[in-house]
Amino acid sequence: MKKYAQISDYLVRFLDNEVRKTGLKRVVVGLSGGIDSAVVAVLAHRAFGDDLLCVKMPSQYSSQNSLDDADNLCKDFGLRSITKSIAPMLQAYEAENPDMNNLRKGNLSARLRMVTLFDMSAKEGALVLGTSNKSELMLGYGTLYGDLASALNPIGDLYKSEVFELARHLGVTKSIIDKPPSADLWDGQSDEADLGYSYAKLDEALRLYVEERLSIDEIVKRGVDKDMLDMIVKKIYANQFKRKMPVIAKLTSRTINHDFNYPRDINL
Amino acid sequence: MKKYAQISDYLVRFLDNEVRKTGLKRVVVGLSGGIDSAVVAVLAHRAFGDDLLCVKMPSQYSSQNSLDDADNLCKDFGLRSITKSIAPMLQAYEAENPDMNNLRKGNLSARLRMVTLFDMSAKEGALVLGTSNKSELMLGYGTLYGDLASALNPIGDLYKSEVFELARHLGVTKSIIDKPPSADLWDGQSDEADLGYSYAKLDEALRLYVEERLSIDEIVKRGVDKDMLDMIVKKIYANQFKRKMPVIAKLTSRTINHDFNYPRDINL
Repeated sequence: MKKYAQISDYLVRFLDNEVRKTGLKRVVVGLSGGIDSAVVAVLAHRAFGDDLLCVKMPSQYSSQNSLDDADNLCKDFGLRSITKSIAPMLQAYEAENPDMNNLRKGNLSARLRMVTLFDMSAKEGALVLGTSNKSELMLGYGTLYGDLASALNPIGDLYKSEVFELARHLGVTKSIIDKPPSADLWDGQSDEADLGYSYAKLDEALRLYVEERLSIDEIVKRGVDKDMLDMIVKKIYANQFKRKMPVIAKLTSRTINHDFNYPRDINL
Repeated sequence: MKKYAQISDYLVRFLDNEVRKTGLKRVVVGLSGGIDSAVVAVLAHRAFGDDLLCVKMPSQYSSQNSLDDADNLCKDFGLRSITKSIAPMLQAYEAENPDMNNLRKGNLSARLRMVTLFDMSAKEGALVLGTSNKSELMLGYGTLYGDLASALNPIGDLYKSEVFELARHLGVTKSIIDKPPSADLWDGQSDEADLGYSYAKLDEALRLYVEERLSIDEIVKRGVDKDMLDMIVKKIYANQFKRKMPVIAKLTSRTINHDFNYPRDINL
């Protein structure tokens, strides 16, 4: 676990540095009861102590298990937390749009959590920490302008299987580590059922494609399932829009995001 | 006006090309009654006809004038439109958070409009068009994950003064062109009062700094007000985060947005 001791030290310093640069001192994390937000909260607590505020944002569809897990994490680590249910907004919208399917409800819920979390960050004078891991980001398994929205993301370069390892190293509440990964957007949802494969298999294939830059043939020769790999590569490209800013029609010699980006770090 | 004839032809082709590439055929635009969304709607109507859906999203704070202007634009151009008030969600949130100031209410409103517009786009199988102009984007005068969120933005490389010219060329409803620019987030709000200077002055200084890449001294020598220029440059850097993706802590040789971006256009 020496590797994860180094990683957690590095990520705590990353958070501290990046937040200080903005002139702010506080952060907020949306706590779902899942492993990603638990890991981010524990790292942020190391960096900021009581300047971290955890925001629990259940809806009427959240499982009691998730709420209990989030509560237990806060107790185990002494995290400052509040609860802001998204149910009033969600029900108000559902009443006017009774035709929504589960996918629309799931995306709507993720975005209403973003809305709530960014408002809490404004109230606190805080930055919003992201909780999307590299598996989700690469596969596009997240809601654009919902859970994918943040100021800083400490775990966006760790695959889901690595987030589990880091969680064990950090001593995250056992029930959070032991349950199957789920976005908890509807009853009984499971990431691995949605994606069709285990994270162990997905992450190994992703690593060979993204970091090792092997060709599809080379990856299949290493024993990776061809159907899974085709699905992964298709998802990587189809969801590229979730990892980029909106496309602006180019009209001048200096178009935003085509031709220039001023440094994000300079605060004159 | 020959320049604006060319620009509008180019932007109609941009919209058509970019939407087709995704495999979709429809678009949605949030119609505020202001000039930016009016111009985008008229361009999109040229490209997509009735495959454009305009979504009017008033709140309890919207002025009747804005609603009338949006209605008149739809009548004048025969635009297909629906109304989805954000008031039920906004009021549900306000009831639980009675301490919000105008800034928080404004950002919340912009984000609830994003939530609504993206849900309508999912229902329609459509892409969301952005309506932020270059003046707003450079000055950070917009809500991150609110009005700044979209799939495609046809006017993001046009300064506000140019959007006015394009609106005149397109024959946009006169009352929309003649009124002072406002985000209409609270009663009596005015962009130019918020920013402290007219768009004519701001845009000339922005153009010299961004496109001509002149130094501050050189721009002042051309007669631009030094205080205004200092304010502009400060805003450009302070709001750079609104023009970039969340920062991911780097841990591998291939980190999203640090080291690679797969092409957005390839849809395997």
